[in-house]
Amino acid sequence: MIAEIIAVGSEMLTPYRQDTNSLFLTGALNDLGISVAFKTVVGDNRAQLTGAARTAVGRTDIAIFMGGLGPTEDDVTRECLAEALEIELKRDHSLLTAMYKRFAERRMQMPENNAQQADVLSGATVLPNSRGSAPGQWLDIEFEGRSRIVLLLPGPPHELQEMWKLQCVERVRAKVPPAAIATCVLKTALLPESAADARTAPIYKKYPNIETTVLAGQGQVEFHLRTTAPTLEEAQLAVDRLAGELEDELGDAVFSSAGESLEEIVGYYLQMRNATLAVAESCTGGMIAERITSVAGSSRYFLGGAVVYSSELKTLFADVPPLMLEAHGAVSKEVALALAENIRDICNADIGVGVTGVAGPGGGTEEKPVGLVWVAVSDGRKQDVVQRRFPGDRERIRRWASQQALDMVRRMLM
Amino acid sequence: MIAEIIAVGSEMLTPYRQDTNSLFLTGALNDLGISVAFKTVVGDNRAQLTGAARTAVGRTDIAIFMGGLGPTEDDVTRECLAEALEIELKRDHSLLTAMYKRFAERRMQMPENNAQQADVLSGATVLPNSRGSAPGQWLDIEFEGRSRIVLLLPGPPHELQEMWKLQCVERVRAKVPPAAIATCVLKTALLPESAADARTAPIYKKYPNIETTVLAGQGQVEFHLRTTAPTLEEAQLAVDRLAGELEDELGDAVFSSAGESLEEIVGYYLQMRNATLAVAESCTGGMIAERITSVAGSSRYFLGGAVVYSSELKTLFADVPPLMLEAHGAVSKEVALALAENIRDICNADIGVGVTGVAGPGGGTEEKPVGLVWVAVSDGRKQDVVQRRFPGDRERIRRWASQQALDMVRRMLM
Repeated sequence: MIAEIIAVGSEMLTPYRQDTNSLFLTGALNDLGISVAFKTVVGDNRAQLTGAARTAVGRTDIAIFMGGLGPTEDDVTRECLAEALEIELKRDHSLLTAMYKRFAERRMQMPENNAQQADVLSGATVLPNSRGSAPGQWLDIEFEGRSRIVLLLPGPPHELQEMWKLQCVERVRAKVPPAAIATCVLKTALLPESAADARTAPIYKKYPNIETTVLAGQGQVEFHLRTTAPTLEEAQLAVDRLAGELEDELGDAVFSSAGESLEEIVGYYLQMRNATLAVAESCTGGMIAERITSVAGSSRYFLGGAVVYSSELKTLFADVPPLMLEAHGAVSKEVALALAENIRDICNADIGVGVTGVAGPGGGTEEKPVGLVWVAVSDGRKQDVVQRRFPGDRERIRRWASQQALDMVRRMLM
Repeated sequence: MIAEIIAVGSEMLTPYRQDTNSLFLTGALNDLGISVAFKTVVGDNRAQLTGAARTAVGRTDIAIFMGGLGPTEDDVTRECLAEALEIELKRDHSLLTAMYKRFAERRMQMPENNAQQADVLSGATVLPNSRGSAPGQWLDIEFEGRSRIVLLLPGPPHELQEMWKLQCVERVRAKVPPAAIATCVLKTALLPESAADARTAPIYKKYPNIETTVLAGQGQVEFHLRTTAPTLEEAQLAVDRLAGELEDELGDAVFSSAGESLEEIVGYYLQMRNATLAVAESCTGGMIAERITSVAGSSRYFLGGAVVYSSELKTLFADVPPLMLEAHGAVSKEVALALAENIRDICNADIGVGVTGVAGPGGGTEEKPVGLVWVAVSDGRKQDVVQRRFPGDRERIRRWASQQALDMVRRMLM
């Protein structure tokens, strides 16, 4: 079975905005054993959307339209589908009554236009929207001699995702041949993409039945494995075998095999060891703290720390001696170690992190070029400190430096 | 004139990867006065790509295919276009010779498959690729009674962009009626999307000739204006007039009319006033510092600060009295003000920022629910403090809180 995902909305045909719902939906369809064959973006234009709808329903088994279900004049998905499929739109009176009621409850008059949200394709099932006002629609239809599924879903991601989970998954599952699908994601930190691929390609190419996607970016290389088999056990066994071989090759560069982010893994380890963390960041400017605190519940193991951007604050908050700064410069092994050791001590944390470097684009010298970063981690007994020279722009250098720091904390806790 | 952009490649039909070239191309086409009516993603599948090619060329004036021009078996764009348009593919011997030569120079044997990169649609112009081995193709063709342009471009972004600039822009420009295009982007902070649109729609709807796109997200609403006129002066005048009216309506909620981010604007103001900044962040966990230091050169005005995630660190780094924490709780007006005032004082900065709140999902109470955030800014003479209740998840609450803080700094400096 193949699907097409159609994102409706002129804003996604500007240079500024992209359809992102289709990534979620593609994953959700793949999980049911359905491939996405086409993705289309079309604007709020009647003729163009009607044509695109006819094309989509004609060339796939499931056509999923996202967006254009709101109350404004630009919201023409319902009308265009009716025209494309040559079926009627009927106003659903129970939907309409519910809408009037919602407005009345807020002591507001419902604008005339809103009534179109109650228009339903003849024969379609209405899908309630628990997070917004535009209901979705599910239509089973014969088109050009074959049965197809046409789905109308709201555009806002949180509405679409909730409607998919509550109203669509089981309905779609009932339509597809049962397939057992197993997946696994291995995440590694700090491996260069080319090296990661060179080391693993000879392994995963031995398993042509397992679809392996290698994704690289921001100091992380991920291996996404997926396979189908008659039973879930067989599928899982196949995926696990390949995952095992990849882990053997990559060793402890693999930090997660269950989807967690590096900051989540660091959090797990800290909780497991009943340990706390404090950071002193210069060139990363708060990025490490921000990543750690992006994890819910991080207050259980993260105390905080200091963003010691100026030399004065390195001394003030992390007790780095001015003489040390003068002798070695702010970007030095000595300062990185002092930051890690002292912030740990001052905050009374179990583990301390210190980062200092040249994020650029200015400020580089021959001796200390842009991209040079020192990262230190200490647990009071042992210290770990590395020098790195990260390529790329400011954003990339800071991201890799934060990745380096988090990975060193992980390794110290391992 | 309308265009369709077709990205070819099965990897873009996975949940992990997206076509991004189309954003660049959309901007480039818009700059020439051409709208993008459709964007399509299709895999490396002969039947599907051939069908999609026929659809695309049939419904637009310019169809631009990206990718699938390489030397592997999966690279079928040339063949599929030939089949879709019912024209011949001819092997170009000068291209082929050049390819053999390149391989010979590297003392390598050219794999058989590579020869297909010399296949050219009958009647097409070959577009040299200065950054890779796959040449592009430009074809003027009559299709279904109308003249169309068909463009084949390589998929890697740096190859595509260079080929567009060197080989395509002028060729396309020669095909479209001359048009002068002016654009303007207004950015506002902290306006709710619905309010921003309600206030501005009556204004921008008076200018149907100016395309206005309203983009909202992460505490920011942006107005992208674009228009075409016979001369650049007229176009600029029209856009400036609408921008002026929008600025009058939105007042100082507009922080930028030249594309800058809020953190850049805060940086400009600080430099203009020769002032320095320090921050004490609790629930934002370093995000404000991270955003400020994402701007190159921020060390000129940003000293640093503290991530005071635990209560102890609020006292240790920002001198918040334990009695105050006990009496009012960490999430309180008093603590936000103390953080701002004290971090300013301790760091010897001109302006101090303090943020404390409940980012969730846990930790909320009836009195202090998830999303409650206090933000304070002080310049030592005047203080500004607000309480906000941000909706959404942890990420959204933290993002809006950082936006609130940066905007308050901007307003204090204005």
